[in-house]
Amino acid sequence: MAPRKEQQIFQATLELLTVRGYEGLTIEGVAERSGVNKTTIYRWWPSKAALLAAALIQADLLLFDPPDTGTLRGDLEELVRGMAALLTASPTSDVAVATLGAAVHHPELATAVRRFFTDRFAREEAVFARARRRGELPETADPLLIVDLLGGAVWIRAIFRGLPLDDDFAAHAVSAVLDGVTGKR
Amino acid sequence: MAPRKEQQIFQATLELLTVRGYEGLTIEGVAERSGVNKTTIYRWWPSKAALLAAALIQADLLLFDPPDTGTLRGDLEELVRGMAALLTASPTSDVAVATLGAAVHHPELATAVRRFFTDRFAREEAVFARARRRGELPETADPLLIVDLLGGAVWIRAIFRGLPLDDDFAAHAVSAVLDGVTGKR
Repeated sequence: MAPRKEQQIFQATLELLTVRGYEGLTIEGVAERSGVNKTTIYRWWPSKAALLAAALIQADLLLFDPPDTGTLRGDLEELVRGMAALLTASPTSDVAVATLGAAVHHPELATAVRRFFTDRFAREEAVFARARRRGELPETADPLLIVDLLGGAVWIRAIFRGLPLDDDFAAHAVSAVLDGVTGKR
Repeated sequence: MAPRKEQQIFQATLELLTVRGYEGLTIEGVAERSGVNKTTIYRWWPSKAALLAAALIQADLLLFDPPDTGTLRGDLEELVRGMAALLTASPTSDVAVATLGAAVHHPELATAVRRFFTDRFAREEAVFARARRRGELPETADPLLIVDLLGGAVWIRAIFRGLPLDDDFAAHAVSAVLDGVTGKR
C-alpha cells in the first residue's frame, strides 16, 4: 500500500535533504516540492525521520537489485562497482553523504540509516546463498563481514580520503577478500 | 615548534567540536576554554580548520603508535582493535563522529580529515615494511587497500550499523583479508 505519487514524495524528500540538510528537511517542504497535500504525507509517515527511512529504502533513485553474474567473484565486483557509483556520482553521493553525515547527530535518523543497511544486506544475502549452493563459499564464511569490508573500503577511499576509485579497484578489493593478500596459495 | 599549552589548546578544540559541532567551534571559544590568548592561537593556526587539522594529528587523545607484535597478523589485529576502541569509546568516538559527520559539509574540514588519514597511513606503513622484510607479504600487496578494508569494516559496523564489535571481530576481519574467505588453501 502506498499513496499516489509516492515516488515524487520520496524524490522531493531526498532533494530537500541534499539541498537544505536534515535540519532544513520538513514535511511541509516535501509537500510543497512534491505537490502532495501535507496531511496526506503525515497520514503515511508520522515524522520526517520515518519519511526519510522509507525514501532511503524505496526511492527509485536508490533502487538496488543484487547482481547475479554466475560467480561469487563477479557478483561481489558488481556490488563494489555499485557502491562506488552510489558514493561518487551525483545526486546519490550527495544523498548518501548528507544522510550519513547528519545521522551522527540525530538518533532517529541513525535508526533510519540502520534500517537502510539492514535492508541492503537482506537483499545481498541472495548473492551468498547462491555462492554456497555453487560450492564457492564455506558455511563458516561470514557474509556480513564480507560486505562490510568491501563497502567500508569504498566509503573510506571515496569519502574520507577523497581519492578516485580506479577501474581496477573492485577487482583488487574483491580479490583481497576472496583470495587473501598474502599470496600463499 | 609549538606554543606553550599546545595540548590544552588541542583538547579544548576537540571538546568544543564534540559539544557544539563544527559550526559552534570558534578560535575565541578555544581561547576561553584553554586559557590561552586568542591572538596566540591565531598566530599558530590561522583558521579553525587549520587548528582542527593540527589537533586531529597531534592531540594526545588521538595519539597513535603503530603496533609491533612481531607478526603482520598480530599487528593488523592490534590496528583493528585500536580503530574499534577509537570508534566505540568516549570521548574519541564523539570526536571522530563529529569530525567526519561535519566534514561532508565543510570542504576545508574535509581537507583536515584527509590529512589525518594520510598521517595515519604514513605511520601504519611501518607495519607493512616490517612484514615485507619478514617475508609475510608479497611486493604486489597493497597496504592502503588492506587498511581501508579493515578500517572501513570497523566504521560501517560500529557507526552505520550501530552493532557491537565482539572480541573476535579483529581476528575474523584480519583473517578474511590475510587468508581470504573462500577457505580453499
